[in-house]
Amino acid sequence: MTDSSATDPGGWHTYLVTQESVSAGRSTLEVVDAALEGGVDVIQLREKDASARCRYELGLELRERTAAAGVPLIVNDRVDLALAIEADGVHVGQSDLPVGVARDLLGPDAIVGCSASTVADAKRAEADGADYLGVGAVYATSSKDVDPDESGVGPARIASVVDAVSIPVIGIGGITAENASPVVEAGAAGVAVISEITAADDPKAASERLATAVHR
Amino acid sequence: MTDSSATDPGGWHTYLVTQESVSAGRSTLEVVDAALEGGVDVIQLREKDASARCRYELGLELRERTAAAGVPLIVNDRVDLALAIEADGVHVGQSDLPVGVARDLLGPDAIVGCSASTVADAKRAEADGADYLGVGAVYATSSKDVDPDESGVGPARIASVVDAVSIPVIGIGGITAENASPVVEAGAAGVAVISEITAADDPKAASERLATAVHR
Repeated sequence: MTDSSATDPGGWHTYLVTQESVSAGRSTLEVVDAALEGGVDVIQLREKDASARCRYELGLELRERTAAAGVPLIVNDRVDLALAIEADGVHVGQSDLPVGVARDLLGPDAIVGCSASTVADAKRAEADGADYLGVGAVYATSSKDVDPDESGVGPARIASVVDAVSIPVIGIGGITAENASPVVEAGAAGVAVISEITAADDPKAASERLATAVHR
Repeated sequence: MTDSSATDPGGWHTYLVTQESVSAGRSTLEVVDAALEGGVDVIQLREKDASARCRYELGLELRERTAAAGVPLIVNDRVDLALAIEADGVHVGQSDLPVGVARDLLGPDAIVGCSASTVADAKRAEADGADYLGVGAVYATSSKDVDPDESGVGPARIASVVDAVSIPVIGIGGITAENASPVVEAGAAGVAVISEITAADDPKAASERLATAVHR
């Protein structure tokens, strides 16, 4: 577990979700090293296409690197993997294990985040004990499991969710340094990205650019 | 957890692995009810195509039914799901979380099974603390993730593994009431099936037929 205020989702301005398949031929370790140098506030081990064994082995490496950087590590979906690599928490979607089950298995000090695309989902996740919400897809995106024809829920949905809940909201989906500002202006604590960092020519510079856009 | 000697894998003669997609339009609950009536010794919640949420909800129902029948319930792959539904244990493959990690998360009393297709895999799984092995695919099969062109490892591989380890061996893959005898004669404690029961005209009768074949 990562000590210190780094584990407060309210302070997560830039949130990297890993996905080696959209990392321009680089390894996730290489991308994460660059993103940590570039100052991202939190890393989520996703890697939806990888086996549990691969994610476990990668997770052990990510745990070392994030711990050394004082940056929290969150595991997508799998609570057992989060326990096994001593991650700081888990991020669950609407079709993953329920928030309350994740909380029971991880204990009161772990971070449990939940994806929500509607105000109703967001309120339920908060009531179930989520520590933060990932809300989106804000903009159209190709790198998550979102219908590419859909245009995204937009910054207006971020504002609606922020009005409806008391826990921090992270915008996700199609966010870049160029379009991040309206997400933060709508009340998001920060923004989560995959390809804006993983597929960038220079992931470190992309991380810095994103942080600048969020803080602007 | 299921009390009594029912949780000794050495006594598992017939082992049903669930998969609604090959259940001839029936629900897994319907198939499991029939299989329990037909006397299967253990149920594994597999359902590879279902979301974690669906597997969790199904798992709670299966836990009630198996507990009432005094039959152990094993969860495929996901240790968190096994913990969440208070299953008796987990079954991991070579690309799932390692046996030792599953054991650490579940504790010493849980059952941890492991798939092994070679003697080397089998010896490693035993050394890592597995309670039983699923060895196969014994015969060619279409219902598991096995190359349909492959002919299976055959009962001879069962005999090799049984010679090499001290833990119970369950044969799996393409096993029917008609071809089960050589698997048991090779030293398997029992046989695991999916479609032989799930896709049968009468899953209860298929379970009884399989038990008769194993005990013959």
